Amino acid sequence: MMRPRRNTARVDIDRVSEASSRKRRDAVAVEEPLEIRIVTPVGEEHQVAVTMRTPGDDFDLAAGFLFSEGLLAGRSDVADLRYCADVEIQEYNIVTVHLSETARFDPAELTRNFYTTSSCGVCGKASLEAIEIRGCAPVPAEGPIVAAEVVRTLPEALRSRQPVFERTGGLHAAGLFDTAGELRLLREDIGRHNALDKVIGDRLLQGDLPLGDAVLAVSGRASFEIMQKALTAGIAIVVAVGAPSSLAVDVAKEFGMTLVGFAKPTGFNVYTSRHRVV
Amino acid sequence: MMRPRRNTARVDIDRVSEASSRKRRDAVAVEEPLEIRIVTPVGEEHQVAVTMRTPGDDFDLAAGFLFSEGLLAGRSDVADLRYCADVEIQEYNIVTVHLSETARFDPAELTRNFYTTSSCGVCGKASLEAIEIRGCAPVPAEGPIVAAEVVRTLPEALRSRQPVFERTGGLHAAGLFDTAGELRLLREDIGRHNALDKVIGDRLLQGDLPLGDAVLAVSGRASFEIMQKALTAGIAIVVAVGAPSSLAVDVAKEFGMTLVGFAKPTGFNVYTSRHRVV
Repeated sequence: MMRPRRNTARVDIDRVSEASSRKRRDAVAVEEPLEIRIVTPVGEEHQVAVTMRTPGDDFDLAAGFLFSEGLLAGRSDVADLRYCADVEIQEYNIVTVHLSETARFDPAELTRNFYTTSSCGVCGKASLEAIEIRGCAPVPAEGPIVAAEVVRTLPEALRSRQPVFERTGGLHAAGLFDTAGELRLLREDIGRHNALDKVIGDRLLQGDLPLGDAVLAVSGRASFEIMQKALTAGIAIVVAVGAPSSLAVDVAKEFGMTLVGFAKPTGFNVYTSRHRVV
Repeated sequence: MMRPRRNTARVDIDRVSEASSRKRRDAVAVEEPLEIRIVTPVGEEHQVAVTMRTPGDDFDLAAGFLFSEGLLAGRSDVADLRYCADVEIQEYNIVTVHLSETARFDPAELTRNFYTTSSCGVCGKASLEAIEIRGCAPVPAEGPIVAAEVVRTLPEALRSRQPVFERTGGLHAAGLFDTAGELRLLREDIGRHNALDKVIGDRLLQGDLPLGDAVLAVSGRASFEIMQKALTAGIAIVVAVGAPSSLAVDVAKEFGMTLVGFAKPTGFNVYTSRHRVV
C-alpha cells in the first residue's frame, strides 16, 4: 500500500487567551523519523543514521546528508535511491542509497563520522581539523559579491516562500539565492540541518555542485554543522536570520566564507570575509 | 594546565545598517564539542556520543543525556564524574561517567539507542513504542495543576533569566518552575536538547527525580526528543514558547502529558491533557 506523505497534521487544541478558552482545529508540522541506509554494488546494506524530519524531498535529504558527511563524493556515486520495500505497508521512512560501482565507500567511515575523535583532544580546533581531513578546501577568495540591499531582503524573501511555516509556525527553512536576491531553491524541515541537506541533496542529484555563485540563507541560527554543510557544497556566503555560534565564526574564518548573522530588513552583522558584501 | 571555560566569546564584526557600516566588538555564544564516555566498574571505557554544546554544567549535561537515553537508571548508578585527564592540556571537552557496582549497563544498548530500529517499520508509531520499551510509563492522570495566568508569565520569566542570551541572542533555555510560576532551575545551551539535559542531569545528581510536580518551560519548539526527555524525568506539564511537532503531540497524548505551545503573555495553545491548566 502506498500512501502520500503529508508535511502537516491537523490536531484539536484549546486556544487560551486572557479573556477566553476556545476549542479549535490547528495545523502542526509533521515530524517523523527517516532512516538512511547505504547499499553497496554487491548488495551489502549499512544503516547510517536516523534523523527526525518533516516528510518530503526524502531522497534529497538522504543524498545531501551523506554528501555533507563525506560518504558521497558526487552525483556519480549514486546509482539509485529507493524507499525500503521489504514490508507490506510502505511507510516511506527508510531511504536506501544504492552506490555505483565507482563509488569509494569504506564502512569504517561510518564510525569515524559520528564519533569525530577518540583522543582526549576533542575541541573546536579538532572539529575544524576534522573538516580539513575530509578534504574540504577554503572557498575561493574572490567568489560571489552581494549588495547589502540584497542581504536585507533575504529574511523576508525566505519567510514569504515558506508555505508550511505559514500554516504551522514550526519549520526551519534553507534557501539558495543568486547574488541579485532571486530565490533558486527553498526547502523546509522541522530540523535546521535537514532543510539544508535537502537543498544540497537536490543540487547534488542535479549535478549542480559546487554552489560557488550562490548565497545561502537560513531561517535559524548558524552553527558549526550548518557552516560545515555549506562548505562541503562550496557555498561562500551564508546569511543567517539568527545568531551565529563561536564555532560557526571559526569555520567561516578558517575556510574564507562570508558569514552574516541577525539579518533583518533594517540591517545585519558581518562576522567574516566582509569584502563579499558591498 | 586548567583553564576556565567560557560560554561567550568576543568577535570583531561589521554592523551594517541602511545608513552605515561600523566595526565593533560583539559577543557570540560558545559552541564546543563535548564527548560523553561511560566507564564501567572494571575500567572498560565506552564512547557514547559527541554533542555540540555551550560549555558549563557539563557533568549535568552528561548525566542528563545518559539518563534520558536510558543508559542511567538513577543517581545510584553514578559513582563519579570527571573530565578526561589523559592529556597535558585539559580541554574540558570529554566527560567520563563512572558507573557504580550496582549499575546495569549493557554496551549493546549503545547501538540500540542510536539506531532505534533495524526493521522496515521505522515510523512515528515505532518511535513511541521505543519509549515504552525503555520502560517509560504515562505520567499520573491527576498530577500538578497550573493556572492559565501562570502559564502566560513563563516565556518572560524564562527570557529574563537568560544571561547568555541577553549578550548573544543565540541560546536556548530550559527552565523548571513550580506551579506558582517560581523558577527553580534554568539552564542555557546552544542546543535545545542540551539545555534540557542539563536541567534533568542537575536534578538526577541531586537525587530529585522524578519531577512530577514541576512545570517545564522551553524557549524553542517542542519536538519528539524534548517530550521524550521530559517524560523520562516524569514531567507532566511542558510549556513551549514555539510550535510543537506532530510527534510531540503524539507523545504527549500517549503518555498523558500536558503540552502547551506558542506560549505568550497574551495566550497559548493547549494540545493535550487540558485538565491540568485551570
